[in-house]
Amino acid sequence: MLTVAVCMAFLACLQAQELQGHVSIILLGATGDLAKKYLWQGLFQLYLDEVGKGYSFSFHGAALTSTKQGQELIAKVLESLSCPEDMEPGRCAELKGQFQRLSQYRHLKTNEDYMALSKDIEAQLQHEGLREAGRIFYFSVPPFAYADIARSINSSCRPGPGAWLRVVLEKPFGHDYVSAQQLATELGSFFQEEEMYRVDHYLGKQAVAQILPFRDQNRKALDGLWNRHHVERVEIIMKETVDAEGRTSFYEEYGVIRDVLQNHLTEVLTLVAMELPYNISSSKAVLQHKLQAFQALRGLQKGSAVLGQYQAYSRQVRREQQKPDSFYSLTPTFAGILVHVDNLRWEGVPFILMSGKALDERVGYIRILFRNQAYCAQNEKRWVVDQSQCLPRQIIFYIGHGELGSPAVLVSRNLFRPSLPSKSWKEVEGRPGLHLFGRPISDYYAYSPVREQDAYSVLISHIFHGRKDSFITTENLLASWVFWTPLLDSLAHEVPRLYPGGAENGYLLDFEFSGAQLRFCQQQLEQLVPGPGSAPMPSNFQVLTAKYRESPLISAWPEELISKLADDIEATAVRAVRRFGEFHLALSGGSSPVPLLEQLATGHFGFPWAQTHLWLVDERCVPLWDPESNFQGLQAHLLRYIRVPYYNIHPMPVHLHQRLCAEEDQGAQMYASEISALVTNSSFDLVLLGMGTDGHTASLFPQSPAGLDGTQPVVLTRSPYKPHQRMSLSLPLINRARKVAVLVMGRVKREITMLVSRAGHEPKKWPISGVLPSSGQLVWYMDYEAFLG
Amino acid sequence: MLTVAVCMAFLACLQAQELQGHVSIILLGATGDLAKKYLWQGLFQLYLDEVGKGYSFSFHGAALTSTKQGQELIAKVLESLSCPEDMEPGRCAELKGQFQRLSQYRHLKTNEDYMALSKDIEAQLQHEGLREAGRIFYFSVPPFAYADIARSINSSCRPGPGAWLRVVLEKPFGHDYVSAQQLATELGSFFQEEEMYRVDHYLGKQAVAQILPFRDQNRKALDGLWNRHHVERVEIIMKETVDAEGRTSFYEEYGVIRDVLQNHLTEVLTLVAMELPYNISSSKAVLQHKLQAFQALRGLQKGSAVLGQYQAYSRQVRREQQKPDSFYSLTPTFAGILVHVDNLRWEGVPFILMSGKALDERVGYIRILFRNQAYCAQNEKRWVVDQSQCLPRQIIFYIGHGELGSPAVLVSRNLFRPSLPSKSWKEVEGRPGLHLFGRPISDYYAYSPVREQDAYSVLISHIFHGRKDSFITTENLLASWVFWTPLLDSLAHEVPRLYPGGAENGYLLDFEFSGAQLRFCQQQLEQLVPGPGSAPMPSNFQVLTAKYRESPLISAWPEELISKLADDIEATAVRAVRRFGEFHLALSGGSSPVPLLEQLATGHFGFPWAQTHLWLVDERCVPLWDPESNFQGLQAHLLRYIRVPYYNIHPMPVHLHQRLCAEEDQGAQMYASEISALVTNSSFDLVLLGMGTDGHTASLFPQSPAGLDGTQPVVLTRSPYKPHQRMSLSLPLINRARKVAVLVMGRVKREITMLVSRAGHEPKKWPISGVLPSSGQLVWYMDYEAFLG
Repeated sequence: MLTVAVCMAFLACLQAQELQGHVSIILLGATGDLAKKYLWQGLFQLYLDEVGKGYSFSFHGAALTSTKQGQELIAKVLESLSCPEDMEPGRCAELKGQFQRLSQYRHLKTNEDYMALSKDIEAQLQHEGLREAGRIFYFSVPPFAYADIARSINSSCRPGPGAWLRVVLEKPFGHDYVSAQQLATELGSFFQEEEMYRVDHYLGKQAVAQILPFRDQNRKALDGLWNRHHVERVEIIMKETVDAEGRTSFYEEYGVIRDVLQNHLTEVLTLVAMELPYNISSSKAVLQHKLQAFQALRGLQKGSAVLGQYQAYSRQVRREQQKPDSFYSLTPTFAGILVHVDNLRWEGVPFILMSGKALDERVGYIRILFRNQAYCAQNEKRWVVDQSQCLPRQIIFYIGHGELGSPAVLVSRNLFRPSLPSKSWKEVEGRPGLHLFGRPISDYYAYSPVREQDAYSVLISHIFHGRKDSFITTENLLASWVFWTPLLDSLAHEVPRLYPGGAENGYLLDFEFSGAQLRFCQQQLEQLVPGPGSAPMPSNFQVLTAKYRESPLISAWPEELISKLADDIEATAVRAVRRFGEFHLALSGGSSPVPLLEQLATGHFGFPWAQTHLWLVDERCVPLWDPESNFQGLQAHLLRYIRVPYYNIHPMPVHLHQRLCAEEDQGAQMYASEISALVTNSSFDLVLLGMGTDGHTASLFPQSPAGLDGTQPVVLTRSPYKPHQRMSLSLPLINRARKVAVLVMGRVKREITMLVSRAGHEPKKWPISGVLPSSGQLVWYMDYEAFLG
Repeated sequence: MLTVAVCMAFLACLQAQELQGHVSIILLGATGDLAKKYLWQGLFQLYLDEVGKGYSFSFHGAALTSTKQGQELIAKVLESLSCPEDMEPGRCAELKGQFQRLSQYRHLKTNEDYMALSKDIEAQLQHEGLREAGRIFYFSVPPFAYADIARSINSSCRPGPGAWLRVVLEKPFGHDYVSAQQLATELGSFFQEEEMYRVDHYLGKQAVAQILPFRDQNRKALDGLWNRHHVERVEIIMKETVDAEGRTSFYEEYGVIRDVLQNHLTEVLTLVAMELPYNISSSKAVLQHKLQAFQALRGLQKGSAVLGQYQAYSRQVRREQQKPDSFYSLTPTFAGILVHVDNLRWEGVPFILMSGKALDERVGYIRILFRNQAYCAQNEKRWVVDQSQCLPRQIIFYIGHGELGSPAVLVSRNLFRPSLPSKSWKEVEGRPGLHLFGRPISDYYAYSPVREQDAYSVLISHIFHGRKDSFITTENLLASWVFWTPLLDSLAHEVPRLYPGGAENGYLLDFEFSGAQLRFCQQQLEQLVPGPGSAPMPSNFQVLTAKYRESPLISAWPEELISKLADDIEATAVRAVRRFGEFHLALSGGSSPVPLLEQLATGHFGFPWAQTHLWLVDERCVPLWDPESNFQGLQAHLLRYIRVPYYNIHPMPVHLHQRLCAEEDQGAQMYASEISALVTNSSFDLVLLGMGTDGHTASLFPQSPAGLDGTQPVVLTRSPYKPHQRMSLSLPLINRARKVAVLVMGRVKREITMLVSRAGHEPKKWPISGVLPSSGQLVWYMDYEAFLG
C-alpha cells in the first residue's frame, strides 16, 4: 500500500511540477546573522509546506565570502535546521536531506557573477526539462549594497519571459522622507512596484497577521463596536528589557522612533484603524484601505511625544564609538506617542504608541479597550465577568513574551465569543493566578496558535504566494515617512528624560494626555525649582500692567498673556450677553491669534457661544476654503471645536458670483449693511486686532488711503504682501467698538512696538496709530518679547 | 466660678434676647409620623444650638386632634427627645425640661383658631416684654390641606410689622408641571416667594450639603478637572431594599421618578453640574446658577429611561386598594435615566440617575468618575494607588448606608488630597477588607462627619438662618417639572420590566447607553421570540423591492427603511466623490428625514462629509435660526454632529436685507446661480424628497403653478400651511438630478400613496407626479404603513 501511495504522490508531483514550474530562491547575505537565525529556517519551512504541491525548487545561498568558506558555513546552517515538532524523525531526515541537496552556496559579487548564476539556472531548467515559474532574491544585506545588487539583477539575472521576479528588501528603508524617497526612486529604476517585497517582520507575527482576519471573521460582532462611540483607547506597545549595548552605532543613527514606531507600530496602527475591505483576501483592496488610513492620521506635533533615554546609553555610545567624556547623546531609547485618526470612525479616540529599551518587561501587544457604557444596578461584589457589562471589555492581540509567553488573541467574555480559524488557533488552557490587563485570564476567551511560527517563515510563505498585503509598498512607506518626518525633525534637539532602566523606572515614564498634548505624569523636579543661574521661568513673572500710548497695557509671557486675554474676552462676552442678549466679536486673521482661539475653544466652558456672533476684521481675497483665508483659520482653530449657530457666523463676502473682491459685486457694502442690521449702532462689543512689523493693523496698510478715514465702514484694500487684495473693516468702524484689544507677540515686533510708542496720530504712516475708540476702551496685550525685547 | 459663669451667660442671654427677639415655631401636623420621627427632634436640636445666642422661642405643636389627646401625644414625643452623645446628662435633662416648657399642643383648624393663636403670641410677647423676630409655620400635613392653612395664616396669623414669616412646605409639590404650577400660583397668592421654604430633605443630607463647599474649598484642584475633558461619567444613585408595601396608595400615584428622581436626584445633579458661583455663601448666586444648570439640561425622551417594577408590587396594590385580580399596575418602582447637560463644560458626559425599591442593598451616593488619560509604562503589578495615574480616579459623595454605613466624602489618592472643614469632617479610620467602587478604602482620602446629623435638623437650622439656597424656589421647582414632565407623559403607558427583588435581580436591571439611548443590557427573551398570535416583529420581514409608478420601490419597516436609505445615500456619495471629487446632496425639510439625518450623522463613519455639499430642496420664509426653518432642522439633527466645511453648506437665502423672501431681493435667483456655479450642469447627485398628504413635494403645492414648469430653477411659492411663503427648487431642476429619492412614511400617507399610484403625469393636481428625472434615476422609499396601510 505504502509503495503505491508514494508512487501516486510521485506521479502527482511530476504532473504538478510540469504545471507549476521551477522556483529559484537566491538568499543574498546567506551567511549573515538574520539568514542564519531565521531565513534558512524559513526557506526550509517553505520547502516543507510546498514540496509535493507542484513546484520544484533550488536554493542559492549567496554572499561575498569565498566559495570554500561559504560552503562550509552554509553546510553548518543547513545541518542545524529543524522540522516541526510533530514530524516523524525519519521523514524529517529525508526532507532535510532533499533540502540540503537543493541548496548550494554561491559567491555573488560582480555583474558577471549574476550573469553566470542566470546561465546556470537556465542550464538546469533545460537539463531537467522544467519550465521556470520565477525567481526570488532575498536582500539580507546592508542598504548601501542595495543599488549594485539591484542593478545586476535587473541587467543580468531576470528570469525568462513568463516567469516572475520577486525581490525582498529588509529595513531600514531610509532615515526620513527624503532618503526613503531617494531609495525608492533608485530601486524603482530597476524593479517594478509589484516585484518588490519590503519586509516589516511585525506583519509576520502571528497575532499581528491575525488582526484583519479577526476583524473579518467577527465582522458582525465588531461592526457596531469598532468606532469612536465604543472604543475608549487603542494601545500599541512594544516593551524591551534589553538595551542597545553593542548596537549603538546603528542605534545612534536611528533611535526608537525610527527603529520601532515608524515601521512596526505604525503598520499595526493601520491594521486596526483602516476601514475593513469587503474582501480581505484582495491584496489590492487591503493596501488601498491601509493607505487611506495613513491619509486620515492627524499630523503629529512636538507635543504629541514624550521621549526617554536609559541612563547608561550615553556611556555605552562613548565606549563603543570612542566619543569624548563630554559627549551626551540625544537619541531616544523610549518614546510614547499620541496619535489621532481624523475621520468619523476614530475622531477623538487616542491611539497610544509606546516602545522602549531597558524597561521592566519584554512584551508586545495591541489592546483595544472599550468604553464602559453600562450602569450595573447590583453591588459590585455580585458582578461576574460573563454577564456584567461593567467590568472591563477589551480585545488584545498579544504579540508575544510577557507573562503569557506566547502569541494570543484575548477577548473579554462580556464582549462576545470570537470566531477564530480552528485549524490554526486553539483555546489557551487555564493558568490560575495569571492576571492580564487588570483581569484574571479566565475573564477572557483566549486563543493561541496551534503551531507557533516565526514571523520570517510566515512572510517567506507570503512572498512565495505573492500576498503583497503583508509587505510595505512604496506608497505605504512614503506615507509613513510623511507622517513621521515632521515629528522627528521637531524632536531633533529635544532632551529625552533619563531613566535608570528596569523596574527602577518606577512611574518616571508614565505619561498622560490632555487633548492632543502628551506629557510625563511626573514633573521633573529640576524643572520646577530652577537652581541659581538657571533661566527664569514664566511663573517667576507676574502679569504686568502699565500704559502704552496712554491706554492700558497688559504684558506677560506668551502663555499667560493668551490666558489673560482669553479670560478678558470671556468676561466681556458674559457681560455683553447679560446686558444685550448677544455678543459681537470681530476677529483678525494671522498666526498670533491661533493659540488664543485654541484656548477659547478648549478651556472656556462658560463662554456663551450660542449667543456670540463672529465677524471678521479682515480677509484675504481668496475663496473661504483656501488655506490662506483668514476664515479658514477660524474654522480650523475655533469653529470646529465649538457650537456657534451657522447663522451667527459672518465670513466676509470676498467671493461673490464666483469672483474675488470685484468692486461691482459690492461685497464690502454688503458686509457693512449686515453689520449695521445686526450690530446695534455698528458698535462691536470687541474687536481683536494685531499689529504688523510695518505698523499695519486689520488689512489697513501704510501709505494706502482706503479705510483710514471716510464714511465707508468696510473697504477693499491693497496689501504689500500676497495675496494683495484684501477686505477690511475701516478705522472709523473699528473705532466705534466698545472695546478694542491689540495683541502683539514675538521679538520680531520689538522695533515697531518702540516706534509706535513714540508716534502721534499718524494713521497714514502707521495705521495702528489711528486705532482710538471714540467712546470705547483700547487695551494693548503684548508679550515680554514684543514689549521688553 | 460656676455661679458666675452661669450668671454671666444669663445676662448675655437677656441682652441678646433683647437684641434678637422672639421666634414662634408652629409645627402643623405635630402628631404625624414625620413630626414624631424627625421634626420635633430637629426643633429640639435647633433649640440646643441656638439657646443663649440671643433668641427666645416658643414651639406650638398643632394638629386637628382634640386638645387633650394632642397634649398626651406631644408629651410622649417630647419625652423621647435625645441630646447629642457628648452632652453631659444633667445638662441634657435641664435643657430638655426647658424645651418641654416652651412647647405646647394646640388644636388648630378654623380661621378663628389661627386668629386666637396670633393673639396668644402677641399677648405673650407683650407680657414678657419681647420684640417679635418672626414666625415659622412648618407644614407637615397632606398637600390637600395646604390652601386652607395658607389662607388662614395669611389672613389671620402673620407676625407684626418688622418680623418675618417663613412657611415650610413638604413634598409632593405637584404631580407634573401643570399641577405644580397651580399649587405654586395658589401658594403665591398667600405668601411672598421669600417667605416660602420648600423642603427637599436630600439637600440636608450631610454629604449632599457638602458638595458645593467641597467644590469651593478645592477649587484649585478641581478647576481643570470638573469638565467633559476629564469627567467620564457622573452617577447619582439611591438604592433601597424596602419595597412599597403599606404605602402603595401614595406610590401608585407617584412612582419612583416623582418620588425620588424629579426631586432628590435632580437637586443633586444641579449641585454637581452648575457653574460654581464666586461666592457660594450668596444664596442668590447659588440659586441663580442652579437655575442655569436646569436650563442647560437636554430634553429627555422615552429612550432616555429604563423602567422596572418588583414582581410583588401589583399584588400589593391589589390587596391594599381592593383591586380586582385582573389589575396590573404600570407604576415603575425602578428607573434608570440618562441625562445630558448641553453646555461646553458637560457636553457628552453621561449623568446617570438611578433609584429603585426592592434592590440588593440600601445605599445612596454621587460618584464622579474621571477618565483615564494616562498610559503607565510599567507592568500593572507595580502600580500603587498614590502614584499611578492608571488606577481609577474618582470623587464620591457617599450619602449613607451601604457598606460604609455613614456619610462620607471619598477622593482617590491619585487625584489630590482634598480640603474639608476640619471642625465638621474627620478622616475615616482604616477598615481593612472594605472595597468601594472597585478599590480598597485605603485607596481613598476618606472623610466622614465628626457628628452625624439628621437632614431635618440641618434644614431646620437653615430655615432658622434664612439660608434659602438649601430649599426649592418656585422657579427651581417649575424648571424641574419642565424637565421631567415630557418624559413622564411619554412613559405613562410603558410596561416596566418585572424584577424579583433583592439579590435575585441579578443582571436584570443593568442598563447601558449608546448616544442618548438607554436600554437594559439583557434583552428580554419574550421580546425576541414572539409566541403564536403575537404581533409580527420587524425582523420577520425582509426589505421588499417592487415597482411604484414604474420606478423602483423599496419598502420595509421604518427602522430598516431608514437604514437602507442611509446606506444607499452613502454609497451614492462615495461613488460621486470617487468620480467627481464632490457630492451634491439636496435635502428636504420636515420630520420624516429626522431619523435619516441622525442615522447618517452617527452611524456612517465612511461618509465623505468633507467633500459633500449640502443644499436645501425647500425652505420656509423664516429666519434661518427660527425653529420652523428647515435649515434649523438640518443644523439640529445633522450639522452639529458632523464636519462639513462651512462653505459647503448652502442654506436658501430666504432672509436677505433683513426681510423674508422679498421678490426684489432676488434670493431665488441667487440660489439658482449658486447652484449653477457649483453643481456641474445643475444636476444634483441626489435629491431627497418627501410627499405630503395632498401630493405636494418640495414646497411645490397643488393648484399653484410656480415651479411646476418653466425656466426658473428656484422659485418662491405659497403653501396652504403656515408659514405660507416658501422657497423651493422647481420640478425642472429636480428632474435634472442624477438620482431622486422620495421618502414616504406612516399610515397617514396611505391614501395619497394609493391615489398617486394610479395618477398619470398631473403635476398641477399632484406635484409629486411631476417628479421624473430626465436622465437620472427615481427611487421610492416607503415604509410598510405608508405602502401597505
